Amino acid sequence: MTSIQEEEVKLFGVVPSPFVTRVDIALNLKGVQYKFVEENLGNFSDTLIKYNPVHKKVPVLVHNEKPISESCVILEYIDETWKQNPILPSDPYQRALARFWSNFIDDKFLSAVRKWKVNNEESIEEMEVAFQFLENELNDKFFGGEEIGIVDITAVFIAYWFPIIQEIIGLKLFTNEKFPKLYKWSQDFTNHQAVKEKLPSRETLFAYFRARLETLVVPK
Amino acid sequence: MTSIQEEEVKLFGVVPSPFVTRVDIALNLKGVQYKFVEENLGNFSDTLIKYNPVHKKVPVLVHNEKPISESCVILEYIDETWKQNPILPSDPYQRALARFWSNFIDDKFLSAVRKWKVNNEESIEEMEVAFQFLENELNDKFFGGEEIGIVDITAVFIAYWFPIIQEIIGLKLFTNEKFPKLYKWSQDFTNHQAVKEKLPSRETLFAYFRARLETLVVPK
Repeated sequence: MTSIQEEEVKLFGVVPSPFVTRVDIALNLKGVQYKFVEENLGNFSDTLIKYNPVHKKVPVLVHNEKPISESCVILEYIDETWKQNPILPSDPYQRALARFWSNFIDDKFLSAVRKWKVNNEESIEEMEVAFQFLENELNDKFFGGEEIGIVDITAVFIAYWFPIIQEIIGLKLFTNEKFPKLYKWSQDFTNHQAVKEKLPSRETLFAYFRARLETLVVPK
Repeated sequence: MTSIQEEEVKLFGVVPSPFVTRVDIALNLKGVQYKFVEENLGNFSDTLIKYNPVHKKVPVLVHNEKPISESCVILEYIDETWKQNPILPSDPYQRALARFWSNFIDDKFLSAVRKWKVNNEESIEEMEVAFQFLENELNDKFFGGEEIGIVDITAVFIAYWFPIIQEIIGLKLFTNEKFPKLYKWSQDFTNHQAVKEKLPSRETLFAYFRARLETLVVPK
């Protein structure tokens, strides 16, 4: 097994991004030592652009000078490179289901959230449906079973970002009454040691999203 | 090794879908015997909805009664279940790059194509950029090297569907002059035995896309 000490692992990211936090959590779960290189949102460094010329965005993981982009691709790479505390199941069918639900969160959930500004009602309906699918799918402590897996990590946005955003915009969608299993999961997940250590502060996220909402809401 | 004969593999699909054809090609490359269950586009069977209640779409692969949805998830499942003729590289970094480019095709390329109706010029520019990235990335006979890999399979839309669609709409974007490496690849790929056997006929696709364009173009 490769010694972790000999390796150079860098994560290029910005603090308020749930996509970056996915990678933070996975590396932390694996016990991989890495350096967080903070980028400036909206003004990425030349190094970042060199590492991710196609999408020009974070997160980028650089392992021994080799860059990898896209959070879900990075999560699979981390699981294949550092075998301890697996985040994907070993059985091919269970792996397929885990990948399916990770994709679901990115495709259905985040697209509904992004649509919120454009078509409020439609996006809330879509989010409600998405929440219900996840509520039905959750049958253990975590989506990964007794331990955190790739679906939990992908869903960090739902556990931590969404409650903050819904508070700012005054929405009562993700509540204990409506989605009790998922709500309990969000508590367990955000209180897990490896996760808690890597979440940005609530204050940081409140400030970030309040500022963004204002620029969108106030007419020029 | 599990005997292929004892297994039941069914693929639920529709003929004109490049997402379904991805799965057809992968199964054919692996030499897996399967039954193609043809669905009616726009009026899916109850069985299909039962197998894919979340997205209600094809392709769905059913392996010994266990359903798997989403073409890229299915491709990974196929590669993990039937080891012969691997479509993903064995090295984790090369696997990450293959997944990155597969995602690129779905995210950047197909979204640009879908945007075509709404913003013609912008989508053509985006497609041109996407073509150029792929042209630069192609350094062997196939994206997978000397053999077909997951990126080639994901890109079947570009090799076979795109030339037909651009002919119908009178576009000259994907040509030998502009993208010589990618153009040669499209010939080699579509002439590969395992691919050729699974492509829908040109006539079928012409009829399908002509009909769709007419309903969109002719005002009611």
